[in-house]
Amino acid sequence: MTALSAAGLSAIAPQLERLAIEVPSWAYGNSGTRFKVFTTPGTPRTVEEKIADAAQVNRTTGLAPAVALHIPWDKVDDYAALRRYAEDLGMTIGTINSNTFQADQYKFGSLTHADAKIRRAAIDHHLECIEIMTATGSNDLKIWLADGTNYPGQGDMRQRQDNLAESLAEIYAALGDEQRMVLEYKFFEPAFYHTDVPDWGTSYAQVAALGEKAKVCLDTGHHAPGTNIEFIVMQLLRLGKLGSFDFNSRFYADDDLIVGAADPFQLFRIMAEVVRGGGLDEGTDLGLMLDQCHNIEEKIPGQIRSVLNVQEMTARALLVDQEALAEARGNQDVLAANAVFMDAFYTDVRPALAEWRESRGLPADPMAAYAESGYQARINEERQGGQQASWGA
Amino acid sequence: MTALSAAGLSAIAPQLERLAIEVPSWAYGNSGTRFKVFTTPGTPRTVEEKIADAAQVNRTTGLAPAVALHIPWDKVDDYAALRRYAEDLGMTIGTINSNTFQADQYKFGSLTHADAKIRRAAIDHHLECIEIMTATGSNDLKIWLADGTNYPGQGDMRQRQDNLAESLAEIYAALGDEQRMVLEYKFFEPAFYHTDVPDWGTSYAQVAALGEKAKVCLDTGHHAPGTNIEFIVMQLLRLGKLGSFDFNSRFYADDDLIVGAADPFQLFRIMAEVVRGGGLDEGTDLGLMLDQCHNIEEKIPGQIRSVLNVQEMTARALLVDQEALAEARGNQDVLAANAVFMDAFYTDVRPALAEWRESRGLPADPMAAYAESGYQARINEERQGGQQASWGA
Amino acid sequence: MTALSAAGLSAIAPQLERLAIEVPSWAYGNSGTRFKVFTTPGTPRTVEEKIADAAQVNRTTGLAPAVALHIPWDKVDDYAALRRYAEDLGMTIGTINSNTFQADQYKFGSLTHADAKIRRAAIDHHLECIEIMTATGSNDLKIWLADGTNYPGQGDMRQRQDNLAESLAEIYAALGDEQRMVLEYKFFEPAFYHTDVPDWGTSYAQVAALGEKAKVCLDTGHHAPGTNIEFIVMQLLRLGKLGSFDFNSRFYADDDLIVGAADPFQLFRIMAEVVRGGGLDEGTDLGLMLDQCHNIEEKIPGQIRSVLNVQEMTARALLVDQEALAEARGNQDVLAANAVFMDAFYTDVRPALAEWRESRGLPADPMAAYAESGYQARINEERQGGQQASWGA
Amino acid sequence: MTALSAAGLSAIAPQLERLAIEVPSWAYGNSGTRFKVFTTPGTPRTVEEKIADAAQVNRTTGLAPAVALHIPWDKVDDYAALRRYAEDLGMTIGTINSNTFQADQYKFGSLTHADAKIRRAAIDHHLECIEIMTATGSNDLKIWLADGTNYPGQGDMRQRQDNLAESLAEIYAALGDEQRMVLEYKFFEPAFYHTDVPDWGTSYAQVAALGEKAKVCLDTGHHAPGTNIEFIVMQLLRLGKLGSFDFNSRFYADDDLIVGAADPFQLFRIMAEVVRGGGLDEGTDLGLMLDQCHNIEEKIPGQIRSVLNVQEMTARALLVDQEALAEARGNQDVLAANAVFMDAFYTDVRPALAEWRESRGLPADPMAAYAESGYQARINEERQGGQQASWGA
Repeated sequence: MTALSAAGLSAIAPQLERLAIEVPSWAYGNSGTRFKVFTTPGTPRTVEEKIADAAQVNRTTGLAPAVALHIPWDKVDDYAALRRYAEDLGMTIGTINSNTFQADQYKFGSLTHADAKIRRAAIDHHLECIEIMTATGSNDLKIWLADGTNYPGQGDMRQRQDNLAESLAEIYAALGDEQRMVLEYKFFEPAFYHTDVPDWGTSYAQVAALGEKAKVCLDTGHHAPGTNIEFIVMQLLRLGKLGSFDFNSRFYADDDLIVGAADPFQLFRIMAEVVRGGGLDEGTDLGLMLDQCHNIEEKIPGQIRSVLNVQEMTARALLVDQEALAEARGNQDVLAANAVFMDAFYTDVRPALAEWRESRGLPADPMAAYAESGYQARINEERQGGQQASWGA
Repeated sequence: MTALSAAGLSAIAPQLERLAIEVPSWAYGNSGTRFKVFTTPGTPRTVEEKIADAAQVNRTTGLAPAVALHIPWDKVDDYAALRRYAEDLGMTIGTINSNTFQADQYKFGSLTHADAKIRRAAIDHHLECIEIMTATGSNDLKIWLADGTNYPGQGDMRQRQDNLAESLAEIYAALGDEQRMVLEYKFFEPAFYHTDVPDWGTSYAQVAALGEKAKVCLDTGHHAPGTNIEFIVMQLLRLGKLGSFDFNSRFYADDDLIVGAADPFQLFRIMAEVVRGGGLDEGTDLGLMLDQCHNIEEKIPGQIRSVLNVQEMTARALLVDQEALAEARGNQDVLAANAVFMDAFYTDVRPALAEWRESRGLPADPMAAYAESGYQARINEERQGGQQASWGA
Repeated sequence: MTALSAAGLSAIAPQLERLAIEVPSWAYGNSGTRFKVFTTPGTPRTVEEKIADAAQVNRTTGLAPAVALHIPWDKVDDYAALRRYAEDLGMTIGTINSNTFQADQYKFGSLTHADAKIRRAAIDHHLECIEIMTATGSNDLKIWLADGTNYPGQGDMRQRQDNLAESLAEIYAALGDEQRMVLEYKFFEPAFYHTDVPDWGTSYAQVAALGEKAKVCLDTGHHAPGTNIEFIVMQLLRLGKLGSFDFNSRFYADDDLIVGAADPFQLFRIMAEVVRGGGLDEGTDLGLMLDQCHNIEEKIPGQIRSVLNVQEMTARALLVDQEALAEARGNQDVLAANAVFMDAFYTDVRPALAEWRESRGLPADPMAAYAESGYQARINEERQGGQQASWGA
Repeated sequence: MTALSAAGLSAIAPQLERLAIEVPSWAYGNSGTRFKVFTTPGTPRTVEEKIADAAQVNRTTGLAPAVALHIPWDKVDDYAALRRYAEDLGMTIGTINSNTFQADQYKFGSLTHADAKIRRAAIDHHLECIEIMTATGSNDLKIWLADGTNYPGQGDMRQRQDNLAESLAEIYAALGDEQRMVLEYKFFEPAFYHTDVPDWGTSYAQVAALGEKAKVCLDTGHHAPGTNIEFIVMQLLRLGKLGSFDFNSRFYADDDLIVGAADPFQLFRIMAEVVRGGGLDEGTDLGLMLDQCHNIEEKIPGQIRSVLNVQEMTARALLVDQEALAEARGNQDVLAANAVFMDAFYTDVRPALAEWRESRGLPADPMAAYAESGYQARINEERQGGQQASWGA
């Protein structure tokens, strides 16, 4: 096949229509590296402005109906009002992200800390996050921990793991019936010697001990060099424990670049395993989120580009000729099986998706539509003064 | 502390005395890379000659009382006789290693293969291995699979994982009451795109589904760059699922160099977590094995050097001043905790271990004792003609 | 753009027409890993059969008019006759590859060896290779060395580097006016601790000391994880020192998979820098070669797939809208510049290339044409008995 | 050998005495990751306070007689006064480090920037640094560039490399007769797709084009996973182009941990090549510097620990029995050569160095001496109010 046809699109439309990607409030604020955070015009100063920006992504693409919050960065006095504000913009409140890496007390850990008082504070923070979930209608609590050590011998890794289990159990017990917890793992950074939840195995072992409402969050940038990420996707779906994705891409470490930018073929393979594992089937509870930092590129267009990348690659993954693939695999015909796979990847889905978008009342070219909308010029003008939000602000 | 004193040694002697390292029969045969296998004089031609060589390692060090076999490489007609042969040399038969990577039928997999007939053959091979265990008195069946694919799309990773679970269940059911199965994982090689048991998480999930007699085997060379291996040691001991080690060392991939040669400090950290997790406590069932290839160095001395490296680093790990460490950790004194750890690592344990060896009727310097024994010259002379054993032969 | 048009193709045809990829004689023999070399029907037993297979790749694609030889694997008594044999099949003899990694004397090195006698033998081998170049009409001598050590302290790296310089100087002096030497570098394997030519910097420093006829050979699989290979392509072209490519692809180490199979976007970026650096300009002396091992897939189709991958990706690289790119870069518009780049990558060039092929008297679908040709069935039948060639045979 | 004897120490004392390690002014300020910079009591607020802290390291160890400055972080009005201030504390001003990564204009590059005006500003900054060198008596200008891009296609890598060459040439021309320039390379960060000086080869090619006064700076944390750093040390010393080291250690990326903390054996191997290459010989111009971030540990003790680590490992490297090593190498006795090397590494040099320190009027235990000095308590008290220096402040 060479370009996706209208008939081809119809066949995959039901799954494509289910594609909904949460965008993170923090992607609209400034971000950077330890060397420098560059500021940009139009950067939001409040959570409301962040949500307004997120709504632009959804308005132009129809792909981003929910915005994830980060607590305490996005704390407000009235969460019911915030929820209504979002709903008026066509958005819901998505995952609530806890944060135990920026308070001084967490310098040596949070849920894993040797000191029960610090663990208490960190647990309480998560209980507060659950209250915010209830108030905002959010279903998912995402826990990513910066906990770890920098030097061999510094901490008791075993005790910290037990502390983590105990802390998580208390948080888990506070979840409502419809609420879930996802535990994210990360290979390294900001801790350099050991990280308390460094790999999917650890996250899996911890959430398996908790129960059905606890699952793993897979951030595509949080693996060792050379890791086969789609294998982990397959395995966690098989085990019933893949809660959600944090999408981004990377060349080296946790670069937090636009999803699909560094290795588009990898994104294709990941989406192919999502499809294979039922992650786009009706009734799926698999969450898809972005977790990116637009350090040097424009932020709202960066987010639009990102959700489009996921959509395009999902379409390609849905195009894999499963019958031909099964036959080639059955024959152990390595080249034929690979060719079926690559044929889908190399198919240009962009024109068909543009038409499909238009048929649904969306702009054919969301990037152009945003550029022409005048929104960026308006916020550049309006958002002067005040404190720009930044990663950590 | 600077050098280990006699009193210091006494304190750690009970755990040191429990140190017993299985040596692999295949380490005495020729091995190499895909580029070349160099031959060496004196290389064994039979399993008996391999066991005789292994006995030299034990004779000079007192550390290697068991030899692991590889089936079919070490198949014989009379296993009871082989067992007696070993016992006459002061050795027992250790882990039985299955091999499903060298028969043509396993080109596209074994326990995971899409074709039930191939899986049947692979399962039967393992059932035969269990019979050999019973006949030789071996307690552990080690399964390492070369299964995987080289190209995206080539195989159905999810189906293969389910096939694996089913195959393992049948093998597990055949284990005797005192017999165990350990499932080894490996990051890559010989498969290059995906490996069916690539990480500890997969091995853990598979063996956890089987039961108490199934555990994980951790090969120190089978991880992605930058992986914190001692963390995995800690986690698997915590979960009660670390069955055994395959010791070796590596700079880049699965180099199979002498344990401790590439990063001695890493071996120290690993042994410190073994100690922390009770792996040297009385009654431990944690297995310690070598799995190395002496491609260019002498083989028997290479093995002697290896078990000594493990012994020396274990002694250092046992020397960590736990009280001082706990205090420094309690104070979150990063430099002090690290200093306690490093002090043990930098302590020279070699003179004390030499004296201790002598006090137990062993040579002070096992490397020199072997060199002076004349054994190598004798086998160089005797073992002419015939087919030298090699990795795969 | 979505699919490449006829007009678009005309614009890039001159450079596409210059695309000529050397195929390696050893790709048609059996290959494998240290674990197993699987045999396949139809495998050549002589260099003539290898050349005949290579001619099939050229016959179906028009892309592979030269075959590289490996000495001593491809030694014959009469090189003039071999040359005529190739020419009768429409092929020329390409790069002569020396081999100093399979003789016992080279266990500890060749051109770098501590012993002058071994260096002498290795130099002489290269002088013989130059004679074979003259006899076969080959212009390039490729030197890849397995030289290195496995254990810290084993060798004197500094002295070995000086030995290498001296050895290369003598070989260089023997080159004819139209002959070149290319020095390949490799990150690791088969040596595990240190490799004597591990990176482009070392190869560059060595060849820069020799003169104009010595250049670097870049094998795309020979880098550390995360290395930006297209940067090295750019740099070596800028320095006038990129002699040739060894194309293949890899996920982890030197996997020697089909070029473009593991990371097609990386191949695109590499070809974009080749274009940028003039590597496809008229009169370019940049060599493009395959260096792959088809361990589990069919060999001739594997080679056809490979040269097509290079052609398709070259077409995409030529499609980059340089004017739009320059404008976006001038505006420091990160997203726009990246979008121009990605637009070329996502363009489906396959239908246009199929038409172009037909217009030049080649099959539209080379893979299908080969399958239908009956060649494979014929060689499977004819090539029974004898010793199959293999990597190293 | 087991512990270093007095006689053994005498033999290596001349080279040990030449050991002088520059400490960086920025190591005394706060630092952190992109996630958080934690503050600590006693942190300097001025360059004078930084120098005072650095002087404590020298006072307790005798190893750190120079302090490197970072411009503009350490700009003052009167550099002559600053120099006298340092000299009164027994310190000289070491390397001047330029900084083009924190001004907004450098968001897309500095010496490599597409815009000549930005390059002009960056060149002028370096010319100012050279003036500061003259005013402070510093001999070395160190250039580390954050220049690079985050997305494929974003920049013209080739043009940027040419821009860099042109910019460096202008800076080089401004160097005084006794002044040098060292160009540092870094694998990645803060740029994620491409870095303009990513490897030693690029730095070497650039400085080789400039002349004798331009050399490479090797930061031990700036390499891809698995890189053999001591090989690069060997090669650059061989080429006469190793200007200086930035010492630190890392597990994953550029962690900037205490030198020797992550892999002490690697530091040993590096120092062994420094010794081998004449880097500690009389008249050497090889610079040794620390470049570390004490994110969570105490800063002054962290620096003391660091210079002691270098001293201890240098002593071990000097202890290698070169005669025995040469003999083992000559015999191609892999295990014996490695054993000679390891024997030096495992020798406990700490007691002998403590005695040697005392014999030279220095504290036997510098860490304890600092702790007992009361200095930390005093600065914790005195340095309240004001703006704490931080990495970037």
